[in-house]
Amino acid sequence: MNKTDIQTALNWRYATKSFDNTKKISKEDWRLLEESLVKSPSSFGLQPWKFLIIQNPELREKLKPATWGQSQVTDSSHFVVLTTLDKLNIDYVDTYLKRIAEVRGVSLESLDGYRKGIIGNLIDGPRAPTVRHWADRQAYIAMGFLMETAALLGIDACPIEGLEPDKYDEILNLKGSGYHTIAAVALGYRNQNDKYASAKKVRFPAESVVKYLE
Amino acid sequence: MNKTDIQTALNWRYATKSFDNTKKISKEDWRLLEESLVKSPSSFGLQPWKFLIIQNPELREKLKPATWGQSQVTDSSHFVVLTTLDKLNIDYVDTYLKRIAEVRGVSLESLDGYRKGIIGNLIDGPRAPTVRHWADRQAYIAMGFLMETAALLGIDACPIEGLEPDKYDEILNLKGSGYHTIAAVALGYRNQNDKYASAKKVRFPAESVVKYLE
Repeated sequence: MNKTDIQTALNWRYATKSFDNTKKISKEDWRLLEESLVKSPSSFGLQPWKFLIIQNPELREKLKPATWGQSQVTDSSHFVVLTTLDKLNIDYVDTYLKRIAEVRGVSLESLDGYRKGIIGNLIDGPRAPTVRHWADRQAYIAMGFLMETAALLGIDACPIEGLEPDKYDEILNLKGSGYHTIAAVALGYRNQNDKYASAKKVRFPAESVVKYLE
Repeated sequence: MNKTDIQTALNWRYATKSFDNTKKISKEDWRLLEESLVKSPSSFGLQPWKFLIIQNPELREKLKPATWGQSQVTDSSHFVVLTTLDKLNIDYVDTYLKRIAEVRGVSLESLDGYRKGIIGNLIDGPRAPTVRHWADRQAYIAMGFLMETAALLGIDACPIEGLEPDKYDEILNLKGSGYHTIAAVALGYRNQNDKYASAKKVRFPAESVVKYLE
């Protein structure tokens, strides 16, 4: 992979404020964006997430006021809502282990140590009290993969935390589903008038955020 | 950017269990990996993180027992510890706003609405009680960018949550620094004997994690 292309993508991307609502992501590009979500790594491989792709225009209109009125909700080509597990239970873990057994052609017994490791860490262990936050964090890895792939494809994106998760859960019928909204990502093509497209990217100097312990 | 290359990278990567400790990431590749961390998006652009690159072999030896004894700590080429803000205070926000003013050549006054938005959401608002988790989540976006860039470059990586954050904070002198350990990523080149390299990637079927609301 050409390093210059990657670097260009990292610098080209920005949190797009205004999308051109006439431009749609091609099916082929979307397939790769979906794959970036699905193939994202997660702790123990547990994938404690569901990604909702909101295609229905009326649903998008309903979500807009719960998103601080931001136009990206209605004007983007694809609008992805990231939802994560409220809690992790043993049934979920066992469903996952069955999936491993199926894909890799191994016995469930051979995964028993792995099962104990997961339970001892996330269900009965140190991360149990904050497992909801654990699940939320995993979705942000997927958010990273989604946004980097988008940038590599020349597709604009806007990660959105500026939303009311509770209202989203209501509108999207997530109450009682075991999943809750944590964030969203709007994807598509920037509006040529978006003044933020030409604003300089603001980062702290590298030496103040990256420390080498030698 | 060639779509096949991206797809290949997504499928090629895996959580590397065993690194070849004789192989080092080149300076040029590392520069792009560092840039992927630094350029990662974060909520409001606040970058509530510091990335510690542990080059000192003795320090790595000390971290290993606090990492469930995993060999990646000592055998990888580069070992990155992701740390995030314990809490967000107004001073930090103002330092960031000064940075925006400096980079974009705008007045601090022009950023006053933005300042109010940040404070109203993260310091006095709905996210204030869990702002530590908010900061942690942002670092996972950076983890995503780091891992995807690594895969694109043919560099192996292992994201590591299996560590004792408290012990890390002690060993790395983070107590009282305002930052805490949230996770780590080991990077380098797989050991040819790593049996996990050839294990099939396990994901739930796409249709069970991606839902289209049409």
